Amino acid sequence: MTQIPPIAKASIDAIRMLALDAVEQAKSGHPGMPMGMAPAAYVLWTEFLKHNPKDPHWPARDRFVLSAGHGSMLLYALLHLTGYDLSLEELKRFRQWGSKTPGHPEYGHTPGVEVTTGPLGQGISTAVGMAIAERKLVAEFGEIAEHYTYVIASDGDLMEGVSAEASSLAGHLRLGKLIVLYDDNEISIDGSTALAFTEDRLKRYEAYGWHVVPGVHGEDLEAIRAALREAQADPRPSLISVRSIIGFGSPLAGHHKAHSDAMGPEKVAATRQALGWPYAPFEIPEEVYAHYRQAIARGQQAQAEWQRKFEAFAKSHPEKAAEFQRRLGRALPLGWESHLPRFSAGEKLATRAASGKVLEKLVPVLPELMGGSADLTPSNNTRTPDMTDFGPENPGGRYIRYGVREHAMGAAMNGIALSGALRPYGGTFLVFSDYMRPAIRMAALMGTPTVFVFTHDSIAVGEDGPTHQPIEHLMSLRAIPNLWVVRPADANETAAAWKLALARTDGPTALILTRQALPVLAGVRLEGVERGGYILSEVPNPQAAIVATGSEVALALEAQQLLAEEGVAVRVVSLPCWEAFEAQPEDYRQAILPKSLPTLALEAGTTLGWERYAHKAVGLDRFGASAPYADVYSKLGFTKERVAAEVKSLLGV
Amino acid sequence: MTQIPPIAKASIDAIRMLALDAVEQAKSGHPGMPMGMAPAAYVLWTEFLKHNPKDPHWPARDRFVLSAGHGSMLLYALLHLTGYDLSLEELKRFRQWGSKTPGHPEYGHTPGVEVTTGPLGQGISTAVGMAIAERKLVAEFGEIAEHYTYVIASDGDLMEGVSAEASSLAGHLRLGKLIVLYDDNEISIDGSTALAFTEDRLKRYEAYGWHVVPGVHGEDLEAIRAALREAQADPRPSLISVRSIIGFGSPLAGHHKAHSDAMGPEKVAATRQALGWPYAPFEIPEEVYAHYRQAIARGQQAQAEWQRKFEAFAKSHPEKAAEFQRRLGRALPLGWESHLPRFSAGEKLATRAASGKVLEKLVPVLPELMGGSADLTPSNNTRTPDMTDFGPENPGGRYIRYGVREHAMGAAMNGIALSGALRPYGGTFLVFSDYMRPAIRMAALMGTPTVFVFTHDSIAVGEDGPTHQPIEHLMSLRAIPNLWVVRPADANETAAAWKLALARTDGPTALILTRQALPVLAGVRLEGVERGGYILSEVPNPQAAIVATGSEVALALEAQQLLAEEGVAVRVVSLPCWEAFEAQPEDYRQAILPKSLPTLALEAGTTLGWERYAHKAVGLDRFGASAPYADVYSKLGFTKERVAAEVKSLLGV
Repeated sequence: MTQIPPIAKASIDAIRMLALDAVEQAKSGHPGMPMGMAPAAYVLWTEFLKHNPKDPHWPARDRFVLSAGHGSMLLYALLHLTGYDLSLEELKRFRQWGSKTPGHPEYGHTPGVEVTTGPLGQGISTAVGMAIAERKLVAEFGEIAEHYTYVIASDGDLMEGVSAEASSLAGHLRLGKLIVLYDDNEISIDGSTALAFTEDRLKRYEAYGWHVVPGVHGEDLEAIRAALREAQADPRPSLISVRSIIGFGSPLAGHHKAHSDAMGPEKVAATRQALGWPYAPFEIPEEVYAHYRQAIARGQQAQAEWQRKFEAFAKSHPEKAAEFQRRLGRALPLGWESHLPRFSAGEKLATRAASGKVLEKLVPVLPELMGGSADLTPSNNTRTPDMTDFGPENPGGRYIRYGVREHAMGAAMNGIALSGALRPYGGTFLVFSDYMRPAIRMAALMGTPTVFVFTHDSIAVGEDGPTHQPIEHLMSLRAIPNLWVVRPADANETAAAWKLALARTDGPTALILTRQALPVLAGVRLEGVERGGYILSEVPNPQAAIVATGSEVALALEAQQLLAEEGVAVRVVSLPCWEAFEAQPEDYRQAILPKSLPTLALEAGTTLGWERYAHKAVGLDRFGASAPYADVYSKLGFTKERVAAEVKSLLGV
Repeated sequence: MTQIPPIAKASIDAIRMLALDAVEQAKSGHPGMPMGMAPAAYVLWTEFLKHNPKDPHWPARDRFVLSAGHGSMLLYALLHLTGYDLSLEELKRFRQWGSKTPGHPEYGHTPGVEVTTGPLGQGISTAVGMAIAERKLVAEFGEIAEHYTYVIASDGDLMEGVSAEASSLAGHLRLGKLIVLYDDNEISIDGSTALAFTEDRLKRYEAYGWHVVPGVHGEDLEAIRAALREAQADPRPSLISVRSIIGFGSPLAGHHKAHSDAMGPEKVAATRQALGWPYAPFEIPEEVYAHYRQAIARGQQAQAEWQRKFEAFAKSHPEKAAEFQRRLGRALPLGWESHLPRFSAGEKLATRAASGKVLEKLVPVLPELMGGSADLTPSNNTRTPDMTDFGPENPGGRYIRYGVREHAMGAAMNGIALSGALRPYGGTFLVFSDYMRPAIRMAALMGTPTVFVFTHDSIAVGEDGPTHQPIEHLMSLRAIPNLWVVRPADANETAAAWKLALARTDGPTALILTRQALPVLAGVRLEGVERGGYILSEVPNPQAAIVATGSEVALALEAQQLLAEEGVAVRVVSLPCWEAFEAQPEDYRQAILPKSLPTLALEAGTTLGWERYAHKAVGLDRFGASAPYADVYSKLGFTKERVAAEVKSLLGV
């Protein structure tokens, strides 16, 4: 192991002490990982990472993902030291209300943070999506879109199933520009990894088809450098095992107690002593700043070079260059909505089929759309005839075969969306939204405009039975802040739902679609869908309302008819998107669903939550059953007679 | 490859044709897997599986888990043919309303079905729990508890992250009696596994520390036999790669179209022809029945031998034998509740800490308790001083280090519970309940009495910020049918919550516990908790009620006090468990929360759903923020002043 030059040692120790002192000041946080991984991060950020601290949005920057998000002080220290808009004051306010330095890195909150991390496994899996996006955009726009995606991942990241799924996918797709520094410190919260994690991690990654660099000493800068060079050169994704020591330099070095919490003044002082760091807390010597902030000049130069390339590209390919800029701005092409298909009353088709037809029209006009499915392509209707499969031999392909890996799909979609220039959608059955729920939450938290295509949306799945019949899923998704859930009632509402989803730029949308065919309804209004809810069928002087979503809207209309025959006048309201409806002014909402009008909710899912809009609910607070769908549907109470009876009971007639 | 004896061929083809004909009759289902794996299943069930069709509950039976649950006809055919109480009529009613042959196997519904499967990855991961339980029970009770756990798993099972987590854990724990037949047919729904699943699966399992048998020809009975023998002899868990052909014998053999759906009369006829099967649909030749039903005599003999062993054991260890029988009956020892600790008003402790103290008392008196955590032991307070870690060197250990593998933990807990003789509990942060949600749903669907210990239950997590602060989780869990969610308000309610959870034998319970310290409250009533909700603090002639859960109950009491000073009389209701409350008679519920009493809900989570009990809700319909918990809590509106103001606004005063 070669000697570490003094400036490198000081620069590395600056990270360590900033992490230790910030945690000490906050009286909470995770000093261990930043202290252990400081040398690897130092080499990466000063010698490899192509970035411009003065323009964190430069499209060709390398991406850095701190998958082990609890080590956020590592990232904040690097951002501050290399000259991002993150002041020392902010570091002092680590984990305080309103600071730019929250406990875990938050995308959109702190300049230079590429992705929100903390829930283990998400960062590395999102990075797989970032690397997919890079390959795709290079295929479209050439070298102006090129970049590496670097990740620091922990034992915890590698234990989580989502990273296993995503890493298998990354190997399959040969994402050579994805480079993971694995903090192989053999410590997790409970103690040594010997307690629970004794598998051969490197062999596992080899099995995924990755390039693996074993046993890189965590303090050996030259070895880290060599490993990164090797990784850059290899056409496969790379995993570099960095044998670091958690809490390096502190009295808790190598112990799981170094993972989290303030160490206390004595241990902090002992660390200062051990590292030979004579400076006060948050004091950084000028030469360390000067050393790190070479990143600015280097970054500006790199970006200027890129800018020249971009301008040459714009000259030779003006349309493509304009397209690249349009896409990065997330502006959809003018008039794209005019391509949405209209369906005629009288037709009968499942909303998943309608969704497929919508995609057939949109895929040609929205090149940013990148589709996929978790091995349910024929069921989700997510692949259009224009699409080819994305892969190493076809990086321009627009369809991703995610395999039976819902969770990796969700995380990868987040990464694809973070490119700015691609709009991912991905399909699975609604019941399996549970498998990807942590990634859906990350989308909502980051505000990535991903579109989830969840088909087979109720007990009307039929024969596959209760394991495949969602009950609680609709309401559980509605409970996630900033996720919009749209359950269209027919084919035209499905077209409007896609419009609603793609018009969103600040968060994800879940489309909830049927397996079974539904009639195309008279009275559907696209702007009604966009407002979240509307009167689909009005009657003079309604005595009651039925508010329904999706497949139950047609049933509501049947019940309305039956009730009309009995002299009961009932309004039918379609409420495909609660979130959009709740964003409407009070008077609009009151006009649709007046509090005074006796209202029955009708949805083939849990009744919990429907008290918000209705006085009574027909739904399902039990699991479903296996039988042909018409049988399950009627046996579990979804008949016009039952609905009519419930309305009458509500009216006391 | 040696010749297949005629009776074996007929017996194998009987499975194939039953599967094909049943799917044809149902006009839905999955014939491909049963047809491909029939030979392997035949060898396993006729030569290896220790079972007694006449007593599917025999405790020492080998367990068989069809992880690829979509191939349910394979299992139904075997159960019928070997003589379980599953008639030919039921096979003819495959996937029909009320039949014993639902689309996917359902535990508790069909005799001989050990576990509900269908959602991919769950079966194999649950089997890991079954194998854990076996090792643990053998350590306690000796050879009377011994059995193998056999699994048939598909490509989809191996792609799912949960199986990756569980398989890594199984390798770590050296669960040598776990044997997986991997249906390595290179086909998934979208097409060839070349589309998405090109990793080296066998190498990956080697990396997990498994014994792997490569390349067993799917039609080579002798090779299957040899592989199973080898697997039985090996001290590691085994994965046998069975190179089967999906839809074997049919014109769609080897094609992904063989995976699902009825093939149509022509292809069914062609299959009859190809297999040389002259019989009508659902006609099984007598010699095939006779061959399979040797299982009955063999099983009865094996069980009789076991019974003799058990009686000898009962003679030499009467207490242990009685304990074994008590445990299998899921009866808790008489008077166990008397060990629950009581906490005194004036103390202040987090409910997670109270839960730890409850466990310290219960672990010694309830030997069926088997604890664990997903690498958050110090935070979840799940490990008591009496517990040692379960592992190959210590199979009697009662604590499982699951690693950062929430999903595998959930699935394994299901398998442990299915043993009947163990009551598993496992901890993680509430926000990470999302990672294990599919397994929680399986617990609810199967009715396994698992206990989830979800700590760090609100924004009061504090500095870790929004990635670690649950918002939607409480309500999302309440939405799952048959899951009981209990959020105790203080230490004594926590003791009652554990009582409620352990008294349940027909489904899972989630305990929702705080990170932060809470005062021990006056007025807590254990039977109130058991009834789900009760008046914690009454006032004469209440003008309003505040209904709260968990940490917000103490805040409600503060607001009550403040309002009293202003002359507003407010009742405080603690509602720790909605499900238990909803099971109470109407008059009880009305006495606690009369519809006519203006009621404010108070819970640091989504307001969605609270309309069920309250006219207005103070909650959170946004993500949290990183800051010390008292700051986050008050900045986001959880102050007595705000609550009091909301009550007054509700009253219009």
